[in-house]
Amino acid sequence: MTQKNNDDILIGNKPPMSYVLALITAFSGDQKKVTLKARGQAITTAVDVTEITRHRFIKDLKVTKIMINTVEMPPREGENRSRMVSAIEITLTRDTHT
Amino acid sequence: MTQKNNDDILIGNKPPMSYVLALITAFSGDQKKVTLKARGQAITTAVDVTEITRHRFIKDLKVTKIMINTVEMPPREGENRSRMVSAIEITLTRDTHT
Repeated sequence: MTQKNNDDILIGNKPPMSYVLALITAFSGDQKKVTLKARGQAITTAVDVTEITRHRFIKDLKVTKIMINTVEMPPREGENRSRMVSAIEITLTRDTHT
Repeated sequence: MTQKNNDDILIGNKPPMSYVLALITAFSGDQKKVTLKARGQAITTAVDVTEITRHRFIKDLKVTKIMINTVEMPPREGENRSRMVSAIEITLTRDTHT
């Protein structure tokens, strides 16, 4: 997975609307591109956030890229092996001229 | 969502390995292309199935397309409104000449 940077929103286990709000806030500034990154069960949340935002809030939002991969996570407490977890990156752009 | 056809595997709530097996079976026949389709929480399973299959079983498997969208589901019992649910379609190809 690529490094965290300002264009990224990391999707965790909060309700989807928290991330929708973060996304709207990002695009209401100078931002032209945002990448949502999620792992494990949060993958579904990332897709929900994208769909809710583009259908209800930012009609001209485009999904420009979707990548899936596998990331290694440190072992959980009581386990001695790291785990492989699926991940997704959804890149969103908005090219308005306003 | 496009129509169900022979190239599709619908991902539900079985363990990922059931679908990995279905995918391996499809590609061990004549199939050159398979689309995994999943809705809601099964989206994560679809990504897991893709990652497990291409890392452990079919090394030359390519993800050629990932689409996300929203589908309308009939209301659950006791509810009177249909629900909007996120969905994913992951198209996989294998172009071996064997």
